[in-house]
Amino acid sequence: MQNRYPIGILGATGMVGQRYIQLLADHPWFEIAWLAASDRSSGKPYGEAVKWRLDTPLPDRIAKMPVSPADPDGAPRIIFASVDAAFARELEPKFAEAGCAVLSNSSAFRMADKVPLVIPEVNADHLQLIEEQEWRKQSGGYMVTNPNCSTIGLVMALRPLEERFGISQIFVSTMQAVSGAGYPGVASMDILDNVVPYIGSEEEKMEAETLKLLGKSESHTVTPLDAGITAHCNRVPVVDGHTECVSIKLRKPATREQILAAWDEFKPLAGMDLPFAPKQPVQFAEQADRPQPRLDRNRERGMAVTVGRLRPCNLLDWKFVLLSHNTVRGAAGATILNAELLASLGKLEQVAVAAGRA
Amino acid sequence: MQNRYPIGILGATGMVGQRYIQLLADHPWFEIAWLAASDRSSGKPYGEAVKWRLDTPLPDRIAKMPVSPADPDGAPRIIFASVDAAFARELEPKFAEAGCAVLSNSSAFRMADKVPLVIPEVNADHLQLIEEQEWRKQSGGYMVTNPNCSTIGLVMALRPLEERFGISQIFVSTMQAVSGAGYPGVASMDILDNVVPYIGSEEEKMEAETLKLLGKSESHTVTPLDAGITAHCNRVPVVDGHTECVSIKLRKPATREQILAAWDEFKPLAGMDLPFAPKQPVQFAEQADRPQPRLDRNRERGMAVTVGRLRPCNLLDWKFVLLSHNTVRGAAGATILNAELLASLGKLEQVAVAAGRA
Amino acid sequence: MQNRYPIGILGATGMVGQRYIQLLADHPWFEIAWLAASDRSSGKPYGEAVKWRLDTPLPDRIAKMPVSPADPDGAPRIIFASVDAAFARELEPKFAEAGCAVLSNSSAFRMADKVPLVIPEVNADHLQLIEEQEWRKQSGGYMVTNPNCSTIGLVMALRPLEERFGISQIFVSTMQAVSGAGYPGVASMDILDNVVPYIGSEEEKMEAETLKLLGKSESHTVTPLDAGITAHCNRVPVVDGHTECVSIKLRKPATREQILAAWDEFKPLAGMDLPFAPKQPVQFAEQADRPQPRLDRNRERGMAVTVGRLRPCNLLDWKFVLLSHNTVRGAAGATILNAELLASLGKLEQVAVAAGRA
Amino acid sequence: MQNRYPIGILGATGMVGQRYIQLLADHPWFEIAWLAASDRSSGKPYGEAVKWRLDTPLPDRIAKMPVSPADPDGAPRIIFASVDAAFARELEPKFAEAGCAVLSNSSAFRMADKVPLVIPEVNADHLQLIEEQEWRKQSGGYMVTNPNCSTIGLVMALRPLEERFGISQIFVSTMQAVSGAGYPGVASMDILDNVVPYIGSEEEKMEAETLKLLGKSESHTVTPLDAGITAHCNRVPVVDGHTECVSIKLRKPATREQILAAWDEFKPLAGMDLPFAPKQPVQFAEQADRPQPRLDRNRERGMAVTVGRLRPCNLLDWKFVLLSHNTVRGAAGATILNAELLASLGKLEQVAVAAGRA
Repeated sequence: MQNRYPIGILGATGMVGQRYIQLLADHPWFEIAWLAASDRSSGKPYGEAVKWRLDTPLPDRIAKMPVSPADPDGAPRIIFASVDAAFARELEPKFAEAGCAVLSNSSAFRMADKVPLVIPEVNADHLQLIEEQEWRKQSGGYMVTNPNCSTIGLVMALRPLEERFGISQIFVSTMQAVSGAGYPGVASMDILDNVVPYIGSEEEKMEAETLKLLGKSESHTVTPLDAGITAHCNRVPVVDGHTECVSIKLRKPATREQILAAWDEFKPLAGMDLPFAPKQPVQFAEQADRPQPRLDRNRERGMAVTVGRLRPCNLLDWKFVLLSHNTVRGAAGATILNAELLASLGKLEQVAVAAGRA
Repeated sequence: MQNRYPIGILGATGMVGQRYIQLLADHPWFEIAWLAASDRSSGKPYGEAVKWRLDTPLPDRIAKMPVSPADPDGAPRIIFASVDAAFARELEPKFAEAGCAVLSNSSAFRMADKVPLVIPEVNADHLQLIEEQEWRKQSGGYMVTNPNCSTIGLVMALRPLEERFGISQIFVSTMQAVSGAGYPGVASMDILDNVVPYIGSEEEKMEAETLKLLGKSESHTVTPLDAGITAHCNRVPVVDGHTECVSIKLRKPATREQILAAWDEFKPLAGMDLPFAPKQPVQFAEQADRPQPRLDRNRERGMAVTVGRLRPCNLLDWKFVLLSHNTVRGAAGATILNAELLASLGKLEQVAVAAGRA
Repeated sequence: MQNRYPIGILGATGMVGQRYIQLLADHPWFEIAWLAASDRSSGKPYGEAVKWRLDTPLPDRIAKMPVSPADPDGAPRIIFASVDAAFARELEPKFAEAGCAVLSNSSAFRMADKVPLVIPEVNADHLQLIEEQEWRKQSGGYMVTNPNCSTIGLVMALRPLEERFGISQIFVSTMQAVSGAGYPGVASMDILDNVVPYIGSEEEKMEAETLKLLGKSESHTVTPLDAGITAHCNRVPVVDGHTECVSIKLRKPATREQILAAWDEFKPLAGMDLPFAPKQPVQFAEQADRPQPRLDRNRERGMAVTVGRLRPCNLLDWKFVLLSHNTVRGAAGATILNAELLASLGKLEQVAVAAGRA
Repeated sequence: MQNRYPIGILGATGMVGQRYIQLLADHPWFEIAWLAASDRSSGKPYGEAVKWRLDTPLPDRIAKMPVSPADPDGAPRIIFASVDAAFARELEPKFAEAGCAVLSNSSAFRMADKVPLVIPEVNADHLQLIEEQEWRKQSGGYMVTNPNCSTIGLVMALRPLEERFGISQIFVSTMQAVSGAGYPGVASMDILDNVVPYIGSEEEKMEAETLKLLGKSESHTVTPLDAGITAHCNRVPVVDGHTECVSIKLRKPATREQILAAWDEFKPLAGMDLPFAPKQPVQFAEQADRPQPRLDRNRERGMAVTVGRLRPCNLLDWKFVLLSHNTVRGAAGATILNAELLASLGKLEQVAVAAGRA
């Protein structure tokens, strides 16, 4: 127990903050040591500050922890952050500057030049960007981001195909769960017996992040994938799990069997023993009517992406459906897996040392 | 009252059959004179045979009408039909052969060579095909079909653009209401907190019907539109109203204003005084997050299509969202409007005469 | 048109405020002349200030009306009010003091001694209380309230039974729609695939209001009904329509037929020609599984209450289910019907005169 | 592994059948050895016969098992049964007669004189009734039933109170999940944006079973609890988890603290080490708005009942809300726990021996 990394959570009372707490409850490498949220919550025991919305009990130890102010003083050197972009823009650099490894689910810095946007299975090599960050040079601190919840599933399904066949065009239409909007988030009057065909800035994020994630890491920067992409984003009355309809054009022809094989054989983290890494990151569902959020979102504890309905597309080459758990694989689990990857690369030790020096 | 056309309903107990009854309750031109359903219902008063699922009361007169066997004997000469394709394939020709005008919402004959597939605002001229039908020549009877519920909204939104700018590529991803699957239809265990990304044969229907509807009527046949189209069809937890995300490539460039004008000025039935024709068939919603099924499905008593979110598409030219009421505009209302058009063209009188002769 | 009473709406942007606007669109007696909402909205055109959540279009005339500050200056003499209790407590007396007839849907003064809590079909005679109000004596202004949304349906179903048989015990358990909580109101994360068995203060309101409504109006006050009542209130994933399970103990024995007759013959407003009065205020549904919110909430444009499943209760005497449209019959329609009753009693003329004097 | 009891499942493709399979996947005492379903499924591999609706994958071993005909020949000596009452009435006696221990979730024999209706925490002593059964005497076979899904939660919450204070009157109003109706069960058109205030025979079952469960086991029979009970049963749009509003009259006065203590100290199976027995069978939720199905149904893997909102009742003594997972605690888990109890009492060994003899 004493060997686990102490970590802090910035934005601990939000939906993703709650997921961090749920998912880290028995984590073998990380231990929650610090919780911060808005000023309104500061000072209260976490159990009073939070409106816990998950279906497992809030652990007693966490319920009793005080909520700290969102300030690097007294915070651990590893920070999991999930706050609104406006707050993130202001807060996250403070922590990096103070020598923290900031692992962020916020959108504020995802597209920043020197900030790696990473899915461990997809582009672990982009992590080298942290060495380009001023914070790193000054205090040892750095920032790593994970993508938007709707982007992660898409990119995980595309990565094995891009690798083998190349992708030149991507069409995606999403049906996203309400948990993606946080709490209270979507009003029930807006979503019962309804669909909302609009999510602010979501399409832009999805388009830009996808190309950066599939891009090439070069000496000092990342060159985005040279492909066309268009997204239609919708909110549907589902609690958890984003479903996405995808059509793609490949650079090299591929048969159905080759595509299935590409997904099946996609196991880039095999052998690394990261606790949150799914054994089979992209799982193909054989049934004609799958994947479905209620039935498939929890595969490999919510960390696997399910694909299905692979069939030819009249306009591009292939079309299929994918599903991923938006607050696990698409948010909290993504940050945690990034942290595990960094730990296994020795990048968290360095922070601890740097912090020790500071 | 005595001047109204007596009409019969084939498939009267189904969801669309119920909508025919609801929508025709006070129709100025048509009067329900005959109801037929499966053998199981035959002989019972309609009120006992049906599980009425609409939110207006079943009219007393209709509740007391007996359910007749599905046989042309004793049926009126105008038949509104909405039965499963397998039954339609067998039953509908019998009625046409017996001299009836069969106005069908069933999918069985929509793509048949000599059978017009018609949306009055879109391709009224395709009706000439009925004169090519053997039935017409023999008994005066004929068959006219209306499209699938997901096709109608799409084609109404596309028609004004095809007319002015030409369309070469269509991408559509749907979020369809459960009423489209009839009753009992979709199990609640399949759709609560869920999405089903599959509807049997729906994508194929949508792709083929769209091109036929936008096609050119020539001497003896219809030449489908020469365009590429791909559809992703999904079921969502919504009672009524299909939402569709669309991207299109135009043959001639068009500005946003030109597209809005094309929709705004699309009033092909103006001056015909058809009771069910919407005044503004395609209505643009200004708000960023519209159309939405719960809020927009009832525009012009469910007969208008709402479009919104017109914006450039990174892959094709433009993208937008559309919504139409699937059991009104997309089914029962579609058949009724076809019947009104035929009446105003004198094609129902001819049936009556022909039938009189027979 | 020029003969209609000009009325003002306090709380115009809320869910009930929106319903006032929808329901008064073509009202023969009342014309919306003034809209007020929170300071945040003040000065904006209503169309910009409101997030319109109803499925009929916001009328153009109303969309362009400016939102006024919530102050009696410049307001009409008849005010329909639906604001949070805390605001109501402060604002409504100001309007009554300034000579307005305040017809309120707010809970703040419902239980006040001299304020009548009225359902026209149930206790029109309680209106005499307005003559006891200080405001009335000073400025001619007065206050009349309508009950909570869950109370109205219950009391309408109970009133005919209380009249004929007497009621000594009432057990009620509700399943209430989300629209009852306003907008944004209930978070979707709280209600999708869920039930919330708690609505703040609702049980207390329902218990107290029911007894006052069924109470006896005496010289200067109302003596509540002498009966026991207990309420369990729950929120369910339904957009509109409160469903309530009721068990009652009667003072005199009644047969099933007698109870049905009491409901059937309950037409206390017959002959008064109030535009919003339902012809059959309490309607019995014969089917075993009714009433249901989606199917029955719109009976008589949402102003009728539907009862069903009348059967013996093992503990008390009878049990049944009732349903009423919570934002129509249970809120906006209730205020409007109160206003119609006051108009027909000449109590709105008096305000106009009094106001003229002031 | 070789020491586990082989068990068979009758009704293996239904919703409860699927839960047996899910819950028994890693059961330390029982191993699924035989699956039977309707004739239509017989002979197929289970994976083809079932429409798997649970959110964990169907185990491979089970998917490959053939579906057997519903006949005792070749079946194991321990049968978990969950089939429609009509089938149960015919099939279950055949298995008991053939020497099987039939542990049934079906309603057919729950109220039969010599058949114990058992919840291990509540009335384990009723099991003695099996020795009165003819089957037992003839072949060693016997039948034990578990209650209806809505009854179990209620009785578990009541039992500790009945024990300490006595209960004379029970009022219960339920909000039941759709999974309780099986698959396809409730049509989505019936439950989206809706409540159905009727479940066939449910109220009668709930009333009768509750009194039998809380009754006294005497030499040859069970005397039901002498108490009044009335139930209102409703279906709501929730996937899993029945919520119930309860009012009770006690025979002896009890304070809030005494009631909470009765629930808290209710641990009748402590020390027996039954794998499915919850550590804290009745759990009190402190929050004002709990229990809620989405948040509380999975406590102790779905085997605990959550109670909340304990408060005085104006009519009876106390009221509260309870929640239990209807297909786990209320069905499949109930049968399994009954089997565990029988195993620990040595009643399954005896069947094996008896069967060996036969």
